[in-house]
Amino acid sequence: MTDVPLVDMLREETGRPAHPETFLSSQRGKNGLAPVTVGVDFPVCVVLPAGGSGERTGLQTPKQFCLLLGRPLISYTIQGFERVSWIHSIVVVVAKENMDLMTDIVGRFQHTKVRLVAGGSTRHRSICNGVMALAEEDEEQDRDNKVVIIHDAVRPFVEEDFLYHITVAAREHGASGAIRPLVSTVIATTSEDFLDHSLERAKYRASEMPQAFKLNIIHKAYQRCTEADFAFGTECLHLVLQYCATNAKLIEGPPTLWKVTYKRDLAAAESVVKDKLSRSACVITGACSRARMLADSLHEAFCSLEMDLDIIPDVIGDNGRYLHKAWNFIQFFMNVSDLAQLETTFAAIQAASQTLLHPVVVIVVSLSNADRRAAEPAAFAELASTAKLRNILLYGVHVQQSKDAERWARSVAKVAELTSALIRERSEALVGQLLQA
Amino acid sequence: MTDVPLVDMLREETGRPAHPETFLSSQRGKNGLAPVTVGVDFPVCVVLPAGGSGERTGLQTPKQFCLLLGRPLISYTIQGFERVSWIHSIVVVVAKENMDLMTDIVGRFQHTKVRLVAGGSTRHRSICNGVMALAEEDEEQDRDNKVVIIHDAVRPFVEEDFLYHITVAAREHGASGAIRPLVSTVIATTSEDFLDHSLERAKYRASEMPQAFKLNIIHKAYQRCTEADFAFGTECLHLVLQYCATNAKLIEGPPTLWKVTYKRDLAAAESVVKDKLSRSACVITGACSRARMLADSLHEAFCSLEMDLDIIPDVIGDNGRYLHKAWNFIQFFMNVSDLAQLETTFAAIQAASQTLLHPVVVIVVSLSNADRRAAEPAAFAELASTAKLRNILLYGVHVQQSKDAERWARSVAKVAELTSALIRERSEALVGQLLQA
Repeated sequence: MTDVPLVDMLREETGRPAHPETFLSSQRGKNGLAPVTVGVDFPVCVVLPAGGSGERTGLQTPKQFCLLLGRPLISYTIQGFERVSWIHSIVVVVAKENMDLMTDIVGRFQHTKVRLVAGGSTRHRSICNGVMALAEEDEEQDRDNKVVIIHDAVRPFVEEDFLYHITVAAREHGASGAIRPLVSTVIATTSEDFLDHSLERAKYRASEMPQAFKLNIIHKAYQRCTEADFAFGTECLHLVLQYCATNAKLIEGPPTLWKVTYKRDLAAAESVVKDKLSRSACVITGACSRARMLADSLHEAFCSLEMDLDIIPDVIGDNGRYLHKAWNFIQFFMNVSDLAQLETTFAAIQAASQTLLHPVVVIVVSLSNADRRAAEPAAFAELASTAKLRNILLYGVHVQQSKDAERWARSVAKVAELTSALIRERSEALVGQLLQA
Repeated sequence: MTDVPLVDMLREETGRPAHPETFLSSQRGKNGLAPVTVGVDFPVCVVLPAGGSGERTGLQTPKQFCLLLGRPLISYTIQGFERVSWIHSIVVVVAKENMDLMTDIVGRFQHTKVRLVAGGSTRHRSICNGVMALAEEDEEQDRDNKVVIIHDAVRPFVEEDFLYHITVAAREHGASGAIRPLVSTVIATTSEDFLDHSLERAKYRASEMPQAFKLNIIHKAYQRCTEADFAFGTECLHLVLQYCATNAKLIEGPPTLWKVTYKRDLAAAESVVKDKLSRSACVITGACSRARMLADSLHEAFCSLEMDLDIIPDVIGDNGRYLHKAWNFIQFFMNVSDLAQLETTFAAIQAASQTLLHPVVVIVVSLSNADRRAAEPAAFAELASTAKLRNILLYGVHVQQSKDAERWARSVAKVAELTSALIRERSEALVGQLLQA
């Protein structure tokens, strides 16, 4: 029987980069594609259809607005494009009834490259509206110069490398698209639901998103296509082939491009985000030597959990740079009555804007010789409630010092187990609790 | 901005049956199929290929042996078939190097209908080995009477209703298979990776598992097929069409049939299991009237979380029946020094065999008037360690009684929030912690 915990299983499949920021490029170099080292020297825009009202899925809330750790799925997708320096504009096409909601999301999560356009009655008409809006911005000769990437709002994990390859291929060939191997055999059925024939799997691929086009090509295709094309939702790749004789270059994309379709996919996507956020933590030791010793012991324990630990004495001066790359902080206190000091940490985290994108975890580890826990539960819970309003999740762990080496080793292991679990789960319900290591 | 928490989103898509036991039949009546009301009067067996060594996925552990809440994925799949009364035998085909591991799993999770057969070099050869093993058991005329279901070990959520329809169709037509609508457009590519053409989506389906066959038909097909069929992994449905002129009946299956393929699918599957286990809880109040009042208040709070609550005074006599359907218990104590009483609950839960399939959650809620928590943390943690060896996850929640109605309402809401979160997460790291409501 294997003893490997699930969380480790989940980590085996992808390479584990050192810092969360590089996570989304972790498939770098796969598929035989060269890693990206340069930007692009022509204008690139994005059309993100998010017009679905969720009626077809039967969900009260359309998938693109479902929350992952308090942030709507579409905000993750937008951010995936926004952090790419050579992408200048993102047209989000949204149903009229969700326009206010989308405006609120753009403001709340401070998206800066987004322009909203009203959607049409089908996904295809929404994409068309987005393309038309972009085309109106330019003279015809400029459209030939511009590449537009079309993506799904519900495929949140886009990677810069892959976007680069798709974009460059569209610039060269006029159109390009992501493909994936088929996961199931595809069969043709008779009208009475019997097997007619099965397709030879090796000859076919699943067509996925993103796709990219020269703006003038996709613009012309939409101007020329028929009502039937709109009604039956003909592939964009097929439209440019039929109406512009442009044959799309197909590039195999990473599995992370998958589309959030079923409710289980929301759980999978949340797990991907939690994985990303729980790969490292920053320990703030203070000046006490015993705290630094505990930090060193923790470092070993975290290594075995495949988590990186940065250890700093405080968040002042040059150490402030850790605030810009960490989503998790473990702060030591010898005396829990010093909790007021936490305000310095909270203010520094908030100034680093980390809390805008994800809830940041702060775990107070208190060391004492007393038999009983020193912090006053009600005061700590109160402090945590206030921190939560700033998107900071505060938890406490009490560890009792011991001169017995074996007992102390057990305590250190327990501190590592508790803090890594709190970091992984990011539970809102447990905010303000004082746990015992 | 929507305020609906993710966990609620995740619940909207499927109907929520009252009890976990009926969960796997929750898609009942969909796809225009009538619900199952009768069994079958002919012998039905299962072949479950689990021969993959995981080499292709790059995982250290093959997916079918990955743990979900401490139990390997394949044990969930086996149990899905084992609890169907009209299925008599399950042939699990396993790679030689995993035979000991599989034997251990069968023993540890007390699977009773399983027979192990050594796998072949490919998935197809493994299925063939399983079919041959079944065919050897019978005379030829008996094979005509028997139906064999072929499934994937890594599709854990099989539903009795769908199995019934697949089985009956195979009995009538000789072969049957699950299909699903295509999620992506399927395209043919040129040898230079350009678009050749796209398929008309409405005419094609994805072929999924389970499939079912009359034993003599699939047996003959495997006897007649070529090395090339084995090498290229030709569909079983195609084999019986080609070699036995049997045209399979195709039936649309529920989305829960999906195959665990990527690491994110393991997180999705764990989420499905956690959903199933966290739909209800049983409150044991004891004789105290204040505890019963708290239980009634909790009942309302849990309703708004879409969790069912059964309230019983103890686990004696007729109340024992709740032990066979609950995965979560909330036990009230007026005085935490009474913790020794928990042994009665633990023993009763274990006698009901619930702990064999899933970790059972027991949350002790202690009511007191004192300002400080009454339980001694070390003693409680010790008790929890012992319980964990019995697959019982023990947590504590302390709530301070108050005559102030508003304050008391806040406390009750907090008890509901904490207990429902503990039940949902089933965290091993938090076992033995005393939380504050």
